[in-house]
Formats: sequence, structure tokens, C-alpha cells
Amino acid sequence: MTYDNENIFAKILRGEIPSEQVYEDDHTVVIMDIMPRANGHVLVIPKTPARNMLDATSAQLTACMDTVQKMGHALQTAFNADGITLQQFNEAAGGQEVFHLHFHVLPRHTDVKPGPPGIMGDMTLIKENAEKIRGVLNSSVS
Amino acid sequence: MTYDNENIFAKILRGEIPSEQVYEDDHTVVIMDIMPRANGHVLVIPKTPARNMLDATSAQLTACMDTVQKMGHALQTAFNADGITLQQFNEAAGGQEVFHLHFHVLPRHTDVKPGPPGIMGDMTLIKENAEKIRGVLNSSVS
Repeated sequence: MTYDNENIFAKILRGEIPSEQVYEDDHTVVIMDIMPRANGHVLVIPKTPARNMLDATSAQLTACMDTVQKMGHALQTAFNADGITLQQFNEAAGGQEVFHLHFHVLPRHTDVKPGPPGIMGDMTLIKENAEKIRGVLNSSVS
Repeated sequence: MTYDNENIFAKILRGEIPSEQVYEDDHTVVIMDIMPRANGHVLVIPKTPARNMLDATSAQLTACMDTVQKMGHALQTAFNADGITLQQFNEAAGGQEVFHLHFHVLPRHTDVKPGPPGIMGDMTLIKENAEKIRGVLNSSVS
């Protein structure tokens, strides 16, 4: 399987279409999922091309996981989350819809199941949630 | 949150209780999930203690993801899988049941949803699936 430069995350990374970005470092960006399955559902994306986990380099996976962990801590604080669920889908049969490697990081609360996939979120709420995450990340910068 | 040395994966790592292991390297082991949500559902586990992703070291996460990728490729071949789903749960609210870091790697087929969680699998079938995975891993050793 090959990498298609016209996938939506490639376009976001090139700035061709907007996203609600909450974090960026040398190797990764984090954006809000616009079809969130929980308040504060974010996507961790490497800046360099990889179709998914199966063709990613070890360096890409390491950079993503370091950012996943950082987001896990930030989401716990921003949403007073009791837990964090990480999901990563490979190929359509595995649940993948955009063919640039990404990790779903969901804040979770006791006895609250994730919502259904594929339903567009309320952009006002998504922007408010993004602001909460940025607030936590900014306050934790030493 | 702390690490409890008496969790079931710690006991498996110490050899105190059996498991259906399919892979081992310096830093990780891979065992069959005995409550599989798909044929060939495996768990990637670091050998050293970590409660979950939130307290893991970068080295532990890197070692796990390298093994996750290796398993992804092996499961594609062993089960002719069309995709791979990766899940990792943190704290009970996040879906975690055993409090030693582990990654769920599931072979997926087009239009087949994962089965329900928490249902004990058929150990004869699990052993057969383990043998398929070992066969692929052994054949790919150069």
C-alpha cells in the first residue's frame, strides 16, 4: 500500500485546509477530531508521511507515542478524566478512514462509553475543548 | 497510581502462571489474549513494570511499538488479514483490566466487527492461532 499525498491530514499538515490544532513539536502535531467520540478526543499525527503503523518508521512511532503520552496527561487534567483510551487503525478493514498515520486519544470517564464513530461534532464545543487542552499544555511548560 | 507486582501479567512474566506466548525479545513478550475479540488477537507487553501508557518510559513505549508493528505484519500474513486494529487502555475508566501496560493487536477482515470483550475464548482454537503466528514469525527470521 502506498502513501497518497492528497489525504486530508497531508493537506492539513501543508496548511491547505484548516484544523483545530492544540499542539506541535518537531515531529508531530495534535488536532481535534471533528467527529469526536468523547469531549476532548484528539488525533496525534506525525509530520512526515506514513500510511499507517504498518509502514511507519520506529522514529515516527516513538515520536507519536511520546506525544500520545503528553496528550494523555493533558487530557486527564483538562477534562478531569478517569482514564484514557488509545486507538490506532490500519487499513479500511482495521477502521482507518484517513490514510496518514494517526493515533486517537480519548479522555474517558467512569461508566461513560465512547460515542458512536462518524458523527460530526459541534464545532463550538470542539473549539472550547481545544482551548482547555491548550490551557493545560501552556500551564505545564516549565 | 502505582504498580502492583501481583497483577496477572507480572505473574505471567515471572512464569508463575501459564500463557500462550508467541514472541519474545529483550524488552517485550507477546501472548494470546484468552478473551479474543478476533482470531489471532494478541497482547504486546513490556518485560519491565509500567502500570499503563501514562507512566511508561519512552524506551518502554518504543520497544512495545516496534513489537506491535512486527505483530501487525505477522498477523496480516498468518490470518490473511485486511487490516489491523491497535487498542491500548489506561485505567479502569479507559477500559484497562490488567494493570501492567499492554497493547491489543487485532487482525481484522473487511466487514467483520470485533467480537464483544470479556468472553473466554476456545483454548484449542487459541493454541492453533498461536501456532500460526509462530509459524509466520519463524519463517521470517533471516
